[in-house]
Amino acid sequence: MKVKPLGDRILAKREEAKDEARAGVVIPDSAKEKPQEAKVISVGDGRRDDKGKRIPMDVKKGDRILLGKYAGTEVTLNDEEHVILREEDVLAIVEA
Amino acid sequence: MKVKPLGDRILAKREEAKDEARAGVVIPDSAKEKPQEAKVISVGDGRRDDKGKRIPMDVKKGDRILLGKYAGTEVTLNDEEHVILREEDVLAIVEA
Amino acid sequence: MKVKPLGDRILAKREEAKDEARAGVVIPDSAKEKPQEAKVISVGDGRRDDKGKRIPMDVKKGDRILLGKYAGTEVTLNDEEHVILREEDVLAIVEA
Amino acid sequence: MKVKPLGDRILAKREEAKDEARAGVVIPDSAKEKPQEAKVISVGDGRRDDKGKRIPMDVKKGDRILLGKYAGTEVTLNDEEHVILREEDVLAIVEA
Amino acid sequence: MKVKPLGDRILAKREEAKDEARAGVVIPDSAKEKPQEAKVISVGDGRRDDKGKRIPMDVKKGDRILLGKYAGTEVTLNDEEHVILREEDVLAIVEA
Amino acid sequence: MKVKPLGDRILAKREEAKDEARAGVVIPDSAKEKPQEAKVISVGDGRRDDKGKRIPMDVKKGDRILLGKYAGTEVTLNDEEHVILREEDVLAIVEA
Amino acid sequence: MKVKPLGDRILAKREEAKDEARAGVVIPDSAKEKPQEAKVISVGDGRRDDKGKRIPMDVKKGDRILLGKYAGTEVTLNDEEHVILREEDVLAIVEA
Repeated sequence: MKVKPLGDRILAKREEAKDEARAGVVIPDSAKEKPQEAKVISVGDGRRDDKGKRIPMDVKKGDRILLGKYAGTEVTLNDEEHVILREEDVLAIVEA
Repeated sequence: MKVKPLGDRILAKREEAKDEARAGVVIPDSAKEKPQEAKVISVGDGRRDDKGKRIPMDVKKGDRILLGKYAGTEVTLNDEEHVILREEDVLAIVEA
Repeated sequence: MKVKPLGDRILAKREEAKDEARAGVVIPDSAKEKPQEAKVISVGDGRRDDKGKRIPMDVKKGDRILLGKYAGTEVTLNDEEHVILREEDVLAIVEA
Repeated sequence: MKVKPLGDRILAKREEAKDEARAGVVIPDSAKEKPQEAKVISVGDGRRDDKGKRIPMDVKKGDRILLGKYAGTEVTLNDEEHVILREEDVLAIVEA
Repeated sequence: MKVKPLGDRILAKREEAKDEARAGVVIPDSAKEKPQEAKVISVGDGRRDDKGKRIPMDVKKGDRILLGKYAGTEVTLNDEEHVILREEDVLAIVEA
Repeated sequence: MKVKPLGDRILAKREEAKDEARAGVVIPDSAKEKPQEAKVISVGDGRRDDKGKRIPMDVKKGDRILLGKYAGTEVTLNDEEHVILREEDVLAIVEA
Repeated sequence: MKVKPLGDRILAKREEAKDEARAGVVIPDSAKEKPQEAKVISVGDGRRDDKGKRIPMDVKKGDRILLGKYAGTEVTLNDEEHVILREEDVLAIVEA
């Protein structure tokens, strides 16, 4: 089964940083909204502009992204928790 | 009797996942808004842009979609509960 | 006396479903906003785009429409209750 | 003295329906906002589009209009109460 | 000293109606926002459209305008109270 | 050290009116937002339109401006209090 | 590890002013939102306009910027606290 996000939406899977390199992204213990790492599983075809033409996505399948803790909608897929969010809610791409 | 959704609206019928393949989409037990599966019964002709030209729909009749639990307006049609929602409230298309 | 709705407004008369075919549209007993059937009495000439050009109406005189229970403004016309609403508040057209 | 409404504004005078033909527009006794009849005294030159060009008015001097009870701003002019409202707050034109 | 309003702003001086002709504009004693007469002292060059081109002002120096009681910002200039407001907050021009 | 405001922002220094000519701008003692005089220290390059092209600033370095008491963000620069605000929050230019 | 901000976002590191020249930017002790200095670590490729074309960034890597105390989202990167914010939340560039 595959889930194809609609428009500029992104299907991603949140992942705690596991190795040293990624451990660098540590979330401060505060009341502020906290970004989290996630791996992009699939992306939509991009939102349409006012003429109906699609605007390309900046985020691609396989990217590691930073997103807000409360961004998007949670979905459990094949027994694993995922999140569907709009591209504009992605803060940054984490490059290895 | 047929119901033709207006503009970019979609008429869909919520369906619990029944087979193994689809059972993968499980909704976590949380306070967050929960996406649900639904089958698309009919779609509108698309919203009009600022010149009155229609923007094509991404969702088609027969598609299985993920939507928020509280998205759209409920309608009972031929004794079965349906939902009418705008395309922008569709999270993703579930591909078999 | 005739009432000509302005812009993209629609003058309609709510009607309970009376025959079998239409009885299919039953409103569930819930706290959600409930769509209702109505017959279109007259429509405006359409809203104007940013250049002042009119965008054609999708709803026509004689159409049966689904609308939200609280959509629009109520008017009693020739002793019968009517509703004036914008086209964007019409959910769907009911085809016989 | 003359009052020239600005942009797409309309100066109108609310009038209770007086003759049989117009008596048809009766306002139901409910908590909803109630439309009222008014006679158009003068209209603005129309709002300007994004290039500064005027968009023509649909409502003309002499028209009888339906408007919401709380629409616009009240002005007493030559000892008679009037209302200044934007064209988009006019629901319909009442044709004799 | 001269004050040049910026963009589509207007510098005006509220004036009670003093002569018979103008006495016609009487403000009803209600809880609604009350329009008031004012004389236009100076106007801005007009707001810029999305390309940076100016959109001409409809209100000119010397015009008598109707404005809401709470519209704009009050300024005392040469010991007299004035108001600076945007053109879109002007209801109408009072013609002699 | 120099501070270059971004986009259509303005760096200004509030100044009480000191000479007779400027003393004309007196702020009435009321609960309303009060405009204040300020001298423009530096301005941004202007905001970009939807194509990325800059829209020229109306306010220039050296201008005396009227601004709301609570407009913008306060910054102390070289031990003197300044304010950074957007051009649209400038009410007027005070000409000598 | 590198973090690439998305669209018109900026990754920056807040820094207290350390030398005399920069000490000039002192934050007044008030209840108002306080701007703070930060050094830009990396910037996005710019937001896309309505056609999908990118609008160039005004802020560049290495710039010292003034930003609001509560602007953006905090991220700890390689054990140091950073902030990710949109360019429109940058008040000014501090030039040496």
